[in-house]
Amino acid sequence: MVMRVGILGASGYTGGELVRLLACHPEVTITHVTSERYAGQPFSAVYPHLTGVGDSLICQAMDAQQISEACDVAFCALPHVTSMTVVPTLLENGLKVIDLSADFRLKDAQVYADWYGTDHTAPALLAQAAYGLPELHRAEIAKAQLIANPGCYPTSIILALTPLLREGLIDPARIIADSKSGVSGAGRSPGQATLFSEVSEGFKPYKVTGHRHIPEIEQELSGVNGSDIGAIRFTPHLLPQIRGIFSTIYTIPLQDRTEEEYRSVLADHYRDEMFVRVLPKGRFPDTHHVRGSNLCDIGLALDERSGTLVVMAAIDNLVKGASGAAVQNLNVSSGLPENMALEQWPLFP
Amino acid sequence: MVMRVGILGASGYTGGELVRLLACHPEVTITHVTSERYAGQPFSAVYPHLTGVGDSLICQAMDAQQISEACDVAFCALPHVTSMTVVPTLLENGLKVIDLSADFRLKDAQVYADWYGTDHTAPALLAQAAYGLPELHRAEIAKAQLIANPGCYPTSIILALTPLLREGLIDPARIIADSKSGVSGAGRSPGQATLFSEVSEGFKPYKVTGHRHIPEIEQELSGVNGSDIGAIRFTPHLLPQIRGIFSTIYTIPLQDRTEEEYRSVLADHYRDEMFVRVLPKGRFPDTHHVRGSNLCDIGLALDERSGTLVVMAAIDNLVKGASGAAVQNLNVSSGLPENMALEQWPLFP
Amino acid sequence: MVMRVGILGASGYTGGELVRLLACHPEVTITHVTSERYAGQPFSAVYPHLTGVGDSLICQAMDAQQISEACDVAFCALPHVTSMTVVPTLLENGLKVIDLSADFRLKDAQVYADWYGTDHTAPALLAQAAYGLPELHRAEIAKAQLIANPGCYPTSIILALTPLLREGLIDPARIIADSKSGVSGAGRSPGQATLFSEVSEGFKPYKVTGHRHIPEIEQELSGVNGSDIGAIRFTPHLLPQIRGIFSTIYTIPLQDRTEEEYRSVLADHYRDEMFVRVLPKGRFPDTHHVRGSNLCDIGLALDERSGTLVVMAAIDNLVKGASGAAVQNLNVSSGLPENMALEQWPLFP
Amino acid sequence: MVMRVGILGASGYTGGELVRLLACHPEVTITHVTSERYAGQPFSAVYPHLTGVGDSLICQAMDAQQISEACDVAFCALPHVTSMTVVPTLLENGLKVIDLSADFRLKDAQVYADWYGTDHTAPALLAQAAYGLPELHRAEIAKAQLIANPGCYPTSIILALTPLLREGLIDPARIIADSKSGVSGAGRSPGQATLFSEVSEGFKPYKVTGHRHIPEIEQELSGVNGSDIGAIRFTPHLLPQIRGIFSTIYTIPLQDRTEEEYRSVLADHYRDEMFVRVLPKGRFPDTHHVRGSNLCDIGLALDERSGTLVVMAAIDNLVKGASGAAVQNLNVSSGLPENMALEQWPLFP
Repeated sequence: MVMRVGILGASGYTGGELVRLLACHPEVTITHVTSERYAGQPFSAVYPHLTGVGDSLICQAMDAQQISEACDVAFCALPHVTSMTVVPTLLENGLKVIDLSADFRLKDAQVYADWYGTDHTAPALLAQAAYGLPELHRAEIAKAQLIANPGCYPTSIILALTPLLREGLIDPARIIADSKSGVSGAGRSPGQATLFSEVSEGFKPYKVTGHRHIPEIEQELSGVNGSDIGAIRFTPHLLPQIRGIFSTIYTIPLQDRTEEEYRSVLADHYRDEMFVRVLPKGRFPDTHHVRGSNLCDIGLALDERSGTLVVMAAIDNLVKGASGAAVQNLNVSSGLPENMALEQWPLFP
Repeated sequence: MVMRVGILGASGYTGGELVRLLACHPEVTITHVTSERYAGQPFSAVYPHLTGVGDSLICQAMDAQQISEACDVAFCALPHVTSMTVVPTLLENGLKVIDLSADFRLKDAQVYADWYGTDHTAPALLAQAAYGLPELHRAEIAKAQLIANPGCYPTSIILALTPLLREGLIDPARIIADSKSGVSGAGRSPGQATLFSEVSEGFKPYKVTGHRHIPEIEQELSGVNGSDIGAIRFTPHLLPQIRGIFSTIYTIPLQDRTEEEYRSVLADHYRDEMFVRVLPKGRFPDTHHVRGSNLCDIGLALDERSGTLVVMAAIDNLVKGASGAAVQNLNVSSGLPENMALEQWPLFP
Repeated sequence: MVMRVGILGASGYTGGELVRLLACHPEVTITHVTSERYAGQPFSAVYPHLTGVGDSLICQAMDAQQISEACDVAFCALPHVTSMTVVPTLLENGLKVIDLSADFRLKDAQVYADWYGTDHTAPALLAQAAYGLPELHRAEIAKAQLIANPGCYPTSIILALTPLLREGLIDPARIIADSKSGVSGAGRSPGQATLFSEVSEGFKPYKVTGHRHIPEIEQELSGVNGSDIGAIRFTPHLLPQIRGIFSTIYTIPLQDRTEEEYRSVLADHYRDEMFVRVLPKGRFPDTHHVRGSNLCDIGLALDERSGTLVVMAAIDNLVKGASGAAVQNLNVSSGLPENMALEQWPLFP
Repeated sequence: MVMRVGILGASGYTGGELVRLLACHPEVTITHVTSERYAGQPFSAVYPHLTGVGDSLICQAMDAQQISEACDVAFCALPHVTSMTVVPTLLENGLKVIDLSADFRLKDAQVYADWYGTDHTAPALLAQAAYGLPELHRAEIAKAQLIANPGCYPTSIILALTPLLREGLIDPARIIADSKSGVSGAGRSPGQATLFSEVSEGFKPYKVTGHRHIPEIEQELSGVNGSDIGAIRFTPHLLPQIRGIFSTIYTIPLQDRTEEEYRSVLADHYRDEMFVRVLPKGRFPDTHHVRGSNLCDIGLALDERSGTLVVMAAIDNLVKGASGAAVQNLNVSSGLPENMALEQWPLFP
């Protein structure tokens, strides 16, 4: 039986991307989309590129009861804080919830309060939320009612480093992640900083030393093989392009291995994964090579002169970094083929 | 039974796009790809974004006999002139051929010689080639062995104007098409003019008054309802973006109709088409809204002050303007659902 | 004696551009900048790229009296309607005013009301305002107290066509101008339509048939050699680039001349102009070739097959299309060398 | 007396940029430009944006004797290796030479051979060449006949770190520089990797662990206050934009200072410099804010959680990273005001 799916916060970019992907999902029908700003309007007025699929969808104001009646599964593409106010009701009403906000990613409510500047209003749910990175938590996701979809930066960094940490190959306490993101990560709300005229021909960092993805990365990498990550060094930058996350990660090897041995550890770890490609020697990730797809490309280089292992990962922030991962989580949690509605290859050029 | 498909000239952008699309086609298996430059190398070395699909494909030097044995269908994504040297052999060997070059689009060998500066070497095939615009020539395509895939600019202009010419609503002799194309239309061969540093922040015309798509447009629009098109006024320009064709077409109405009546003519004509969207009043096409898809968006505006009907069309030059149309032609000619492997919605943003 | 200059509405892009240019003007000192939004803040907080020049400038809320005391010349880079509320006071107080808004470009207050949807509140000033295109109205500008800086689109079209109309070479009643503009023309106010993620990889028309530059173009071209322009056909489009206006103008020749003869008419007309370059045969304008400069490049092609003369012009919308022209007007009206502070060559690549 | 200047290798981007800048230099006349490819053609055919300045300049094939007669100063914008074959003759003939290639930057001919894969053919000149970073080597430059213009990446990194190393504030052995460059750094020679369609929407590293700027950075930072830099960790990446270098540099503080104290060290060091701006707390560099100018913007952030001092620098690779620095060196070495022909403010937006 086809699942009835609702998309909450459908007018943002991740909402639009969910509709784009799910429109081709054979086991899903989108029955409900919410948008406060566009309530009463057809979805195709929000996203004209989806004219044809979105004509029959009318944006609704948010109403947890109404959603619960219309849907079996809810994707929450809402801002953080908003998400945790509606999710508890949906869960009580028996829906499966895949939350794309940051509200259920951190296990510790105090850490949430520290980084998000507000108390968590549903702390009891934190323990039961599965961290939605199927490559690392597939079993948990399969049985969870609430799935916390990972952040875009964390996805790139966690996928790149976890296998190396598991094998005890790199120093957990000296990781530096220099990350770069396309502008779509900032969302669709108008702001001076994301205007075309400001962004094009510009490259700049933002939230230097204080980005909210830091505790998420620390949580997920800590404890891998007993690692003490400490405080991760993470600098996000804004790229003059729409889509793409690229992380250049500097690590210090703990053992004397060749580049090829490090590569094998990654390749072996992801051998059966549909969406992770470990690149051969001399080839490095490029955001253009994963655009529009749910792929994560990982490459590495051992700098023997300086004793540094550089690990690099690229994803499309709106797909593997958000909506594609959410669909993958739906598939995992529904026992469907993991790539259903995610078969399309990257759009290049 | 799955069709065995070959892609000739697979290292160009239209070749890569054919692989991207056909990799998801359930009735097709790609058995052969050719590239002189990359002969002997895996296809994923040519297009790393297709790592996973292209690993098992090894680029071959062109050999018509070898192709004939390996394939039921050949897509020729070759330069013009090259195409007409290999197509006759493929046809003799019983293959279906979908040719993306300009070699079989023009019905008159003399016109070909005039515009392409060389004699046609297979003029006998011109009459039997179907012009591969299914929206207008579906029946012919269905029974043809050789399908001439249309040019990208002509696709946008012919789809926009044909319904209006059929109804005798616009003056065929005073059409002006101001067209703009993304850079990918210039192909993947390195050239100074298509370097990022030259193109970005630039907008310029090229081949003003003499582009080779002119005779193709004139051929297809002439004779529609007895129209005498005469010499079309057509100016192509280069856009600082990868994909997209946009045509702004100025026409003179012959009858006193409202804008809504013109729109109805277009909408009625394309009512059953999967890939043409006639936009409602006040909405205009945008190349971003069709990117990565096989859609053609058409909009119009009647300028009552000046007595001008402006018709506008947008397509993705690599999809509806090339490889997507080729796949659509394959589907039509094979009796398959016309959108097989073409279901994906535009990638926005 | 150095002129004391004020810039009203300094936080918009044309305001910022005025500061950039005037910072190098040896006969000018910027004594006053206004911005409602940034009042009290240093100008370098508005435009960090001008850190060093803008540190000592503190943004002021608008106060016509204060401006009058601080300045000899006022550049009004304000929205239309706002401009006409402050300009009369400035003029009464003896300032020279160079107005970059649309408020004083149209000679007929009724036309203003028709197109701008509001009555003109200072109609008496319309007759005395000089239309600030020095190449065509130098003498008037030199003696005017109020100079109405032209619109960006009109500048490109009027410079391209006036010499041809003066010689009676083209049909004034059948002009079609297909124009394209970089995004900076939309200003710095945040809006969804000008976000990087919306604009990049997109090309689209806007205000089809109804752009407010239409009456300005019609006014300036009408009456040139007795021409009756009628209603101009003008379609503006948005380019995925920051700067640049490109107009492709389709005209019908009235006489049987060669392309070279048309080119000579333009070249002769602009022979002594510093900022107009008429390009040789086979070379066409490119917005990238004028970026950051006050130049207007004009090219043309005679399409003999269709009997069409295509005239093309490119400018930087923020320089020759706005702030550079304003500085040129200041120079003309002050008897200074016309290129003072405008010497820099285009930034390419 | 005006200096007669020659530009060798004028058809590359740095050559074009030298012409753009020097065209406004009151103490210079460009008497000679060379280009093998364009020999015999006017310079404006190479760079149409310089039509007007470049019309009278005819490109010459390289001839050291001819250059020596025509010029007092030669700017060599030639590829490395080519440069060292012509420079000795120019010096013997008494010209001042400002070399933009890598040939005279390294003091040790063996290091040159190791990194450039070829023996140095004029090793005796290495000792007398001044490293052309005026902010750090002004006195040497003033008296040198041969000035080795720094590499673009090194400029950003050396300016950012030298003051901190001089004060012994950061660990010299643990520096990591993650750098990003606009595409123009790859030059104007056509190549697939720098096509618009490949670069746009892409971000990727290149020459990971092995870029030739590494020994230059190590040479210039080593020995500053006795530092032993060891092997620098440096990863260059390609940005989808034309101009701009951005370096994010991770350093480990050796002393317990506040962020403000580090900032003061930098600000004090560059207090009298025209072209270095040390940004206030909370503001970070952006390549867009230095575009087209000779400025270097430096910002910093102290990450107290992880004990990391992040230092960031942005320059325009073609100006402060190449041709602007070369003009600055000319000014220094000629006793002219250091900003002559370099007064223009950044082009934003």
